[in-house]
Amino acid sequence: MRLLLISNSTNPGEAYLDYPKYNIKEFLGEKPVKALFIPYAAVTFSYNEYEEKVNDRFKEIGHSVVGIHHFDDPKKAVEEAEAIIVGGGNTWKLVRMMRDNGLIDLIHKKVKGGTPYIGWSAGSNVACPTLRTTNDMPIIDPKGFDVANLVPFQINPHYLDDHPSNHGGETREVRINEFITENQDVYVVGLREGTMLNLEGDVLKLIGKRSARIFRYGQEPEELTGKDDFNFLLK
Amino acid sequence: MRLLLISNSTNPGEAYLDYPKYNIKEFLGEKPVKALFIPYAAVTFSYNEYEEKVNDRFKEIGHSVVGIHHFDDPKKAVEEAEAIIVGGGNTWKLVRMMRDNGLIDLIHKKVKGGTPYIGWSAGSNVACPTLRTTNDMPIIDPKGFDVANLVPFQINPHYLDDHPSNHGGETREVRINEFITENQDVYVVGLREGTMLNLEGDVLKLIGKRSARIFRYGQEPEELTGKDDFNFLLK
Repeated sequence: MRLLLISNSTNPGEAYLDYPKYNIKEFLGEKPVKALFIPYAAVTFSYNEYEEKVNDRFKEIGHSVVGIHHFDDPKKAVEEAEAIIVGGGNTWKLVRMMRDNGLIDLIHKKVKGGTPYIGWSAGSNVACPTLRTTNDMPIIDPKGFDVANLVPFQINPHYLDDHPSNHGGETREVRINEFITENQDVYVVGLREGTMLNLEGDVLKLIGKRSARIFRYGQEPEELTGKDDFNFLLK
Repeated sequence: MRLLLISNSTNPGEAYLDYPKYNIKEFLGEKPVKALFIPYAAVTFSYNEYEEKVNDRFKEIGHSVVGIHHFDDPKKAVEEAEAIIVGGGNTWKLVRMMRDNGLIDLIHKKVKGGTPYIGWSAGSNVACPTLRTTNDMPIIDPKGFDVANLVPFQINPHYLDDHPSNHGGETREVRINEFITENQDVYVVGLREGTMLNLEGDVLKLIGKRSARIFRYGQEPEELTGKDDFNFLLK
């Protein structure tokens, strides 16, 4: 299986999807790929706009995407995809649309069968067993919390250490501690912005300049870098 | 109907539940009330600890609470409650526990019948039609998004304007814009910390020094203060 699970599309002040474009290029390879793009996480802008934003960046690296909304039969589009790319936005809307279109199990099987998968933000969340570590507002009932289940752990994308000093709301770490208290047998990877996880067969590694924060019930959170072994997460 | 829906329990640097205690005192009145406390939003600490934290403050204002976890029959506890108080924590866990214990419709009827209701944070969220404007991590499936439906609008508690400058994740306003795009007939009240909504019969007002930010699809967000009329939200 081949996965590239990116924390965030864009770093502040940069062009959309700019920082991970060379990682995407390396992941997809030299031969031009026309990937299937799933834009369902978009809520306040159109699927065409979303597709265009992604293609603006992809043409710089010799690849392109076509949005699943152009296909009469989205299931067939998944079955025939050369690569599957799921963009960020609102995880809840994304999952509801994937479920309504009958794509969740199909994507699971297709990617397990070897089709490369790239996700960022919500698109990385849906590669997990469930959406239970999303940061997004639950604007719509997803009709079930299970998602594509490509990895056995949970990712918290956009993991951040900062917390407004004048704010009484819970920090991200407090929220993840709630998660592992409720779900004691699941690892959570706090995936900081600017970083991504790459699975190639049975080797999982972290890419990017920052460390990832690993949470598990009953253990102290651990900071792991690109030099560390992440394969324990796959067991 | 009588409601006191508080944004947050505690301002940074203050004791737990300190800032709203005089509002709670005024709301509950001079005669000592022994209120039913629903601590189900607690995940990483015990219901007894939670009850004690609340009682520490309540004794300063001449009232007390007793946790619903002490009752063999939680439904009966709700039916017989003098006042109902729902504390903050994790909204998803709170709703799941309320649903598993068959309390949601019961609280609706009981409070509609005149029993005073106080909530803060998650406890204010569950007074809305659904939990779809929570900020919390969905650590458990609540088995349905509908909640106590005491008011016809949605509250976003801990509403904040700040956003870490080096963070690429969506702002709170972006998330609420997603909500109103998906749910075009629903008002959302961005309830800033240190403020609360008070319903007395058919009069709804804002209490606190900061304004509330009102969102509705197709309208510019509006800032309303304690001097403004909030009753349009009840229609």
